[in-house]
Amino acid sequence: MRVIGIDPGLRNLGWGVIDVAGSRLTHVANGICHSDGDDGDLAQRLLSLHSQLTEVFRTWLPEAAAVEHTFVNKDAVATLKLGQARGIALLVPAQFGLAVGEYAPNAVKKTVVGVGHAAKVQVDHMVKLHLPGVVIAGADAADALAVAICHSHHLQSADRLQAALRAAG
Amino acid sequence: MRVIGIDPGLRNLGWGVIDVAGSRLTHVANGICHSDGDDGDLAQRLLSLHSQLTEVFRTWLPEAAAVEHTFVNKDAVATLKLGQARGIALLVPAQFGLAVGEYAPNAVKKTVVGVGHAAKVQVDHMVKLHLPGVVIAGADAADALAVAICHSHHLQSADRLQAALRAAG
Repeated sequence: MRVIGIDPGLRNLGWGVIDVAGSRLTHVANGICHSDGDDGDLAQRLLSLHSQLTEVFRTWLPEAAAVEHTFVNKDAVATLKLGQARGIALLVPAQFGLAVGEYAPNAVKKTVVGVGHAAKVQVDHMVKLHLPGVVIAGADAADALAVAICHSHHLQSADRLQAALRAAG
Repeated sequence: MRVIGIDPGLRNLGWGVIDVAGSRLTHVANGICHSDGDDGDLAQRLLSLHSQLTEVFRTWLPEAAAVEHTFVNKDAVATLKLGQARGIALLVPAQFGLAVGEYAPNAVKKTVVGVGHAAKVQVDHMVKLHLPGVVIAGADAADALAVAICHSHHLQSADRLQAALRAAG
C-alpha cells in the first residue's frame, strides 16, 4: 500500500510518500510545495498549493493519506493562515477519493520515535532509520514522512485487529 | 458586472450574487452551503463545501468575488476550523480565474450601513434596502450579500479613480 503524509503550511507544505508491505517500509518520494507572499494574494497562493499538491497525487498515486494536526497558538492570524493551508491539504486527498487520517504531532513522535516530546533532530534520525537511503527535501518533508510512517503503523494495527476479530469470530 | 460575496464557515458558508450596473444593484441569488459534523470527517466536509461552492460558480458565473475576512478569537480550534473553510472559499474563485477581494467585517458594515460597529439587524435591513425584493436564505447569506455590495462599491470607486486619472492624464 502506498501512503502519503502531509505537513501543512501556507509557505511550505511538506509531503512524503512511502510504500508499505507488511512491516517493511520503502521511501518513494518527498518534497515541499512552496507559496511565497510575493506570489500574489492569498487566493492565488492557495490555488498554487492546490495545483502543486494535486500534481503530487497524480504523479505518485497514493492509496492512503494522513495530515498532521498542528496547532499554532501563537496568534489568531497565524492559526487562520495554517487553517487555510490545512483546508487545501485535506481537500486534495478527498478529491482523489481517499479517507484522510489526522495525527497530532505528539502522536506522530510517539509512533516514530517512541516518545511524544521528541526533538526534531530525533524525528529526522528515526525517519532515516525507517527509510534507508532517503534524501529528505527539508524539515517539512521530514515531518510529512513521519506522518506517513505513523499512518502506516495505525493502518497495520487496524488490519491486525480486524484479522484477529475474524479469527476469533 | 456580476459580483459574488462569500461569508466563510465550516458548518454554514453563505454566498450572495448581485448584478452591478453603474450605481444600480440587482439581487441575483443567495444561499448557504452546509456541511454538518454528521457528514463524515473534516476532509469530506471540505470536499462537500468545495463541490457546493463550485456548483454556485458554475450556475451564476460571477465576474468578481470577495470574501469576508473574519477573525474568531474565541480559541485556536475555532480559528483553525474557520481557516479551513476560508481556504475553500478563497480557492474556488481563484480556480475560476477571479481575483478575490477581502474585507474585514467592520469595513463591510461601514460601506453597507455607514458605521463600522452596526448590529446584524441593521446590516440585514440595509441589504434589503439595497436589493429590493430580495429573499434572504439566512444570516450567513445576508452577510455574504453585504460583502458583495461592499466589493461592488470598492470596484466602482477604483473605476472612477482610474477614469479621473485618465481625464487628468
